[in-house]
Amino acid sequence: MKLLQETIQAIQPLNEAVMVAAQKEIDYCLKPPGSLGKLEDIVRQIAGITGRVHNSISKKAIVVMMADNGVCTEGVAMYPQDVTRIGADFVTSGRMGVNFLAKHAGADIIAVDIGISVDIDCPKALHRKIRYGTANFLEKPAMERAEAITALETGIEVTLSAIDAGYDLFGVGEIGIGNTTASAAVLYAFTQAPIERVVGRGAGLTDAAFARKKEVVRKAVQLHRPNPDDPLDVLAKVGGLDIAGMAGVYLACASRRVPVVTDGLISNVAALTAMRLAPESIGYMIPSHLSFEPGAVLLQEITGLAPMLNMDMRLGEGTGCALLFNIIEAALRMIEEMGTFAVLGKSKKEIADKARAYRGEFGK
Amino acid sequence: MKLLQETIQAIQPLNEAVMVAAQKEIDYCLKPPGSLGKLEDIVRQIAGITGRVHNSISKKAIVVMMADNGVCTEGVAMYPQDVTRIGADFVTSGRMGVNFLAKHAGADIIAVDIGISVDIDCPKALHRKIRYGTANFLEKPAMERAEAITALETGIEVTLSAIDAGYDLFGVGEIGIGNTTASAAVLYAFTQAPIERVVGRGAGLTDAAFARKKEVVRKAVQLHRPNPDDPLDVLAKVGGLDIAGMAGVYLACASRRVPVVTDGLISNVAALTAMRLAPESIGYMIPSHLSFEPGAVLLQEITGLAPMLNMDMRLGEGTGCALLFNIIEAALRMIEEMGTFAVLGKSKKEIADKARAYRGEFGK
Repeated sequence: MKLLQETIQAIQPLNEAVMVAAQKEIDYCLKPPGSLGKLEDIVRQIAGITGRVHNSISKKAIVVMMADNGVCTEGVAMYPQDVTRIGADFVTSGRMGVNFLAKHAGADIIAVDIGISVDIDCPKALHRKIRYGTANFLEKPAMERAEAITALETGIEVTLSAIDAGYDLFGVGEIGIGNTTASAAVLYAFTQAPIERVVGRGAGLTDAAFARKKEVVRKAVQLHRPNPDDPLDVLAKVGGLDIAGMAGVYLACASRRVPVVTDGLISNVAALTAMRLAPESIGYMIPSHLSFEPGAVLLQEITGLAPMLNMDMRLGEGTGCALLFNIIEAALRMIEEMGTFAVLGKSKKEIADKARAYRGEFGK
Repeated sequence: MKLLQETIQAIQPLNEAVMVAAQKEIDYCLKPPGSLGKLEDIVRQIAGITGRVHNSISKKAIVVMMADNGVCTEGVAMYPQDVTRIGADFVTSGRMGVNFLAKHAGADIIAVDIGISVDIDCPKALHRKIRYGTANFLEKPAMERAEAITALETGIEVTLSAIDAGYDLFGVGEIGIGNTTASAAVLYAFTQAPIERVVGRGAGLTDAAFARKKEVVRKAVQLHRPNPDDPLDVLAKVGGLDIAGMAGVYLACASRRVPVVTDGLISNVAALTAMRLAPESIGYMIPSHLSFEPGAVLLQEITGLAPMLNMDMRLGEGTGCALLFNIIEAALRMIEEMGTFAVLGKSKKEIADKARAYRGEFGK
């Protein structure tokens, strides 16, 4: 609990003054104000995160939390639970979806067994198993409150170590059969939104399994009545070890002022969880893609993280993060390489004043 | 006219059989069917384009067509016409928006002076000036019909040369003050859609200039009454040299079975023009980002090109293409590097049958 508390307490707001300074550099580039859209937002946000106007990325990692979910015995998943173990094997040997995308982005994968239901034989994984999968939360709480805290702290520890090793851009992914059901339950517990806005078909359910999934989520939350103002209670009662671990990754990044990219549904539920534990942590997150899952839209409304990629992807694993890494690195070159309005004989101040007036006029 | 006709006649449909074969490889990767969304679409489309299941990109180029538009004297543009010349200088010396993005993507820029209103001093540009800017189409046709044909053939020639030099993935960009007005006029001439769906603020107009731009577009089309079934008539009367040149790039790529990425509004108006000249050419185009301009949504409805990037960008120059290049190259690794359902003891045929049934059920 101490590490979690210390991490949360270390999280500060973004550096507004540096963001203003970065905006001046962005506006001085020879282009209409704001015309590079979200690329400009990325440059400004990362300046606010690191506290430096000029930034570049040296080492990238996607932390993939791997865990099983007891609820998958309820027929809410498309694949048998053993696929989590196979996923662990594949991701550590470079054969999952996230691997080819991470490789293309020049990113490493840090795969963490935080709760797979069997012992795995993957020397390249970090072995931080807290328990052999969660309990079926239709019968009892998914885990103990202490286990939820340990899962959060595991995510924090793994990430702090990676930051110490020089990683300065993170993505967050997961592997675990049944984890969209746990994510939907966490989202439902936090929001009490209509069930249709929360539950989707996950990896690709039939109509019958989809109906069952909605029923399971509703029943679980009715049974345990997790307190929406207590994220640890929500995680323990209807969450997953992967979700908790991912929330820890976000908190660790925010506490050390390192940017972190969100992925699809599960990763964004973890982002919401981190935000409920430490509201300022959201400022350190950069969204990647809009998941095919309906809950993704609801999450966007709550967190304000508006995805840039619209790829109809629904695989998880951190696949969207890998795609966004390249866009982030491209964006950061803007204020290093672009020509400026100096060519038209304009001063930086003159252009900054004009751009401010322009943004005022268009409400941007 | 001969080159244009030959190019159009050489354009064939995508190779459906190869696309089916590629889909089998995609489905055999260890993931739920369709879960990599548009990354899968890219793999399948490029297979249909090249006629090979397995593809990789060796050389990438963004063809940037540079031209002036006589209509900019009507107060429809945010910047003076001289900025086109400065843009030519900047893009050939690596300082425009598209440069840092192309550099990050490992792509070359082929900058073509197809009609800048002054002589430029840029040794690195291709000097293919057809005339010193178009005429103000509020007074007379933008250009002669023969000039529109020459502009199209210039785009074709430049692209065929680049293909011969080994480029196998193209993007299309432009630099030219006033070119969103010409694009809007072309779109309006082709579609007769409500003016609000066609005309946007371009690089960032004030309310007054925006109203003026709508009036100019409406008046020009009323004055010349271009025949919407005759793309050459539309280009000549209310088009631009850059738009015609870009349409030529698309036609050349389609004729040689090479994939080509579209950018923002102007590039998509050129894509529509190419599609009207040769309907099958659309199959060779891969969309990149959704422009901030309202016409972008209308164009998507007509061409079916659904952008993958939602970046609020409105700069043009081919900036969106550069971002998509990386996503395309990442996608192509999928069927080379991912593990397969063989690990679960499944045959390729068995998985293909399942995936087909799945797509049938969900209408995908």
